[in-house]
Amino acid sequence: MSELLLTGIGRLITNAGDPITDAAVMMVDGEISYAGTASDAPDQGGGDRIDCEGRAVIPGFVDAHTHVVFAGDRADEFGLKMQGASYAQIAKHGGGILSTVAATRAAGEEALFQEAATRVRRMIASGTTTIEIKSGYGLDLDTELALLSVARKLGHDLPVTVKTTFLGAHALPVEYRDDRKGYLDLVVEEMLPAAAPLADYCDVFVEEGAFSVDEARRVFEAAAGLGLGARVHAEQLSHSGGAALAARIGAVSADHLDHATANDARLLAESGVVAVLVPGASYTLRSPQAPGPMLLDQGVTVALATDCNPGTSYLESMGLVVSLAVVEMGLSAEQAIQAATRGGALALQMPDHGFLVQGSAADLVIIVAPSAVHIPYRPGTNLVWRTIKAGRVVAGAWH
Amino acid sequence: MSELLLTGIGRLITNAGDPITDAAVMMVDGEISYAGTASDAPDQGGGDRIDCEGRAVIPGFVDAHTHVVFAGDRADEFGLKMQGASYAQIAKHGGGILSTVAATRAAGEEALFQEAATRVRRMIASGTTTIEIKSGYGLDLDTELALLSVARKLGHDLPVTVKTTFLGAHALPVEYRDDRKGYLDLVVEEMLPAAAPLADYCDVFVEEGAFSVDEARRVFEAAAGLGLGARVHAEQLSHSGGAALAARIGAVSADHLDHATANDARLLAESGVVAVLVPGASYTLRSPQAPGPMLLDQGVTVALATDCNPGTSYLESMGLVVSLAVVEMGLSAEQAIQAATRGGALALQMPDHGFLVQGSAADLVIIVAPSAVHIPYRPGTNLVWRTIKAGRVVAGAWH
Repeated sequence: MSELLLTGIGRLITNAGDPITDAAVMMVDGEISYAGTASDAPDQGGGDRIDCEGRAVIPGFVDAHTHVVFAGDRADEFGLKMQGASYAQIAKHGGGILSTVAATRAAGEEALFQEAATRVRRMIASGTTTIEIKSGYGLDLDTELALLSVARKLGHDLPVTVKTTFLGAHALPVEYRDDRKGYLDLVVEEMLPAAAPLADYCDVFVEEGAFSVDEARRVFEAAAGLGLGARVHAEQLSHSGGAALAARIGAVSADHLDHATANDARLLAESGVVAVLVPGASYTLRSPQAPGPMLLDQGVTVALATDCNPGTSYLESMGLVVSLAVVEMGLSAEQAIQAATRGGALALQMPDHGFLVQGSAADLVIIVAPSAVHIPYRPGTNLVWRTIKAGRVVAGAWH
Repeated sequence: MSELLLTGIGRLITNAGDPITDAAVMMVDGEISYAGTASDAPDQGGGDRIDCEGRAVIPGFVDAHTHVVFAGDRADEFGLKMQGASYAQIAKHGGGILSTVAATRAAGEEALFQEAATRVRRMIASGTTTIEIKSGYGLDLDTELALLSVARKLGHDLPVTVKTTFLGAHALPVEYRDDRKGYLDLVVEEMLPAAAPLADYCDVFVEEGAFSVDEARRVFEAAAGLGLGARVHAEQLSHSGGAALAARIGAVSADHLDHATANDARLLAESGVVAVLVPGASYTLRSPQAPGPMLLDQGVTVALATDCNPGTSYLESMGLVVSLAVVEMGLSAEQAIQAATRGGALALQMPDHGFLVQGSAADLVIIVAPSAVHIPYRPGTNLVWRTIKAGRVVAGAWH
């Protein structure tokens, strides 16, 4: 039996009731056995103990939308885009998503793993305890399977829970440039059946220039037949109908939603689709943030995620995501912290994660500040003192 | 003699010519003795050596505008402001700058030092090698002197160069609420002479609600008589004439400049006043960024800084400042990196800092990426692999 007791918690965010001051948390064998006031805490046996000395504790971040497994370097492309370069100019410099696809295809599984592991270790040190990882930079059978294998291996080798999503319909690969139907046949008939054992979900990028609602529906129907729930890249760059599709097919999540309308919000709320918002992408693209407050007002469950990817949101820090959600999107600090923890867990159908009550997963973060509001208040500083995954300290800046 | 040789630099930003690929840097006794292509590097004696394995190297960040010495916690005030609370509501909750003044007066010099040292250590670990620190949270003689003493002690005890600025005219303290002239008399006649031995500069917050141009001129004239150069909080929340004043009196810097006009820019350029821009404050205040590209176009020397303070910009990371300067202000990545290094050094009249040539200070940063563009491209991730101050490794995430 492994035991860990946290004492001296200045402020405990449980996501199951009001914050608790002067709190304690007891963890046994990877689960919370007690989370409440210090005065009511049970006596501890012989396990480990950490005095938090007034620091705040929150559930671990659940980063419900990432593309963290990739190869190649698109920093120069970022620099050009920031100076107003057109897509044509960027393509001329060999940029764009297909440059990541080319580099990823060429990289080999071991290099993909090592690069992604470096990123995920930094994410863990920034308080992330669960992460969703999408394929979509292979766009051929072997590389898509390799991406999902690497994602699963990250969850196996590193102290983080990984959920995997097959995103074969991310973009049209260069070899199918003039054969949309041929590529969708490949996705549906070959990739999906082969990917299903490695994937928890299927995703489609619904957008002008990517895939239509009808094309997406075909992919999601095939995925459902293989037992994969749907996540939808919806209403990011324009209003393309992805959110309504997500509602209609009972998707698990609709992601991005920068251009979602109040009607979309009602549909998502009615059908229980979680909205996964990614403010780092809007920041990087200099576009307006998704209407997070409106979605909450309409009763939609909101999650926050990094969207970590080399093209539009190379963020690893959920803390910065929370800050952007508060400062640029207009969520309250409490809403943003909850969306980055409990919201993410609901977006990944992990009901025993993202909150801290008896029986829930012992995934939590001790922050070097007396309250969680410090996270949005102090962007760019990693306030994580310790990341605790399944009841064990797995990362921490010893400051 | 202490020697340190960096080999295997993938890309070296010297701020004195084009970036150099496949570079080496040699440091002797705290100075650069060679910075150039690896093939032309001199033979090393028996000193230390670091293989950068393709990583990029840039000059250390020079953070030319901070208020990093303070006490108290204003996170809740931040949360209220983000939800639209008025100044009256914030004052009712005991917030605002005067709450920091009250907490700072009560804290004691040792506590002020320890709190600030924690912040400055994180700054050093984020690549900062020189920092300007202002007083201004005391607003009485003893506390203003204590703040400057703490700032000087930070420079003495930590591996960072500190420049200090007396900012007695930061706000009107509560005990002088109805006696502006009385407070300015105190600043000019008592505080300034006592502070001068501890200060490199004098600053005044020129703004409606703070101090007028005429009041500022009086303070700066007295400061000049004591040998202190001027820095001006100018045109932050409105156009109040601070930039023109800075130009007229030959100030060292004009800071903030969110509302600066093209005419202000011409005046600053003509008089050689450095513009110190602080995009973290505009981010936190949800106000438009200062016109950095316009200032550069008009020939103004631009510096970037965190403005680290508990009210409007609790940033410690110059990396995030660079990202905001690129994404939100519109500087190019190269301009932003230069402004955050060489620009800051010029703003602090340290001509041998902020670049890497023979004879310049051996202050530099090795980043865990092949180019410096990764800094704005990947906000929220501390990309510093090693911080080197005066030729010694003083911080680094060992990843």
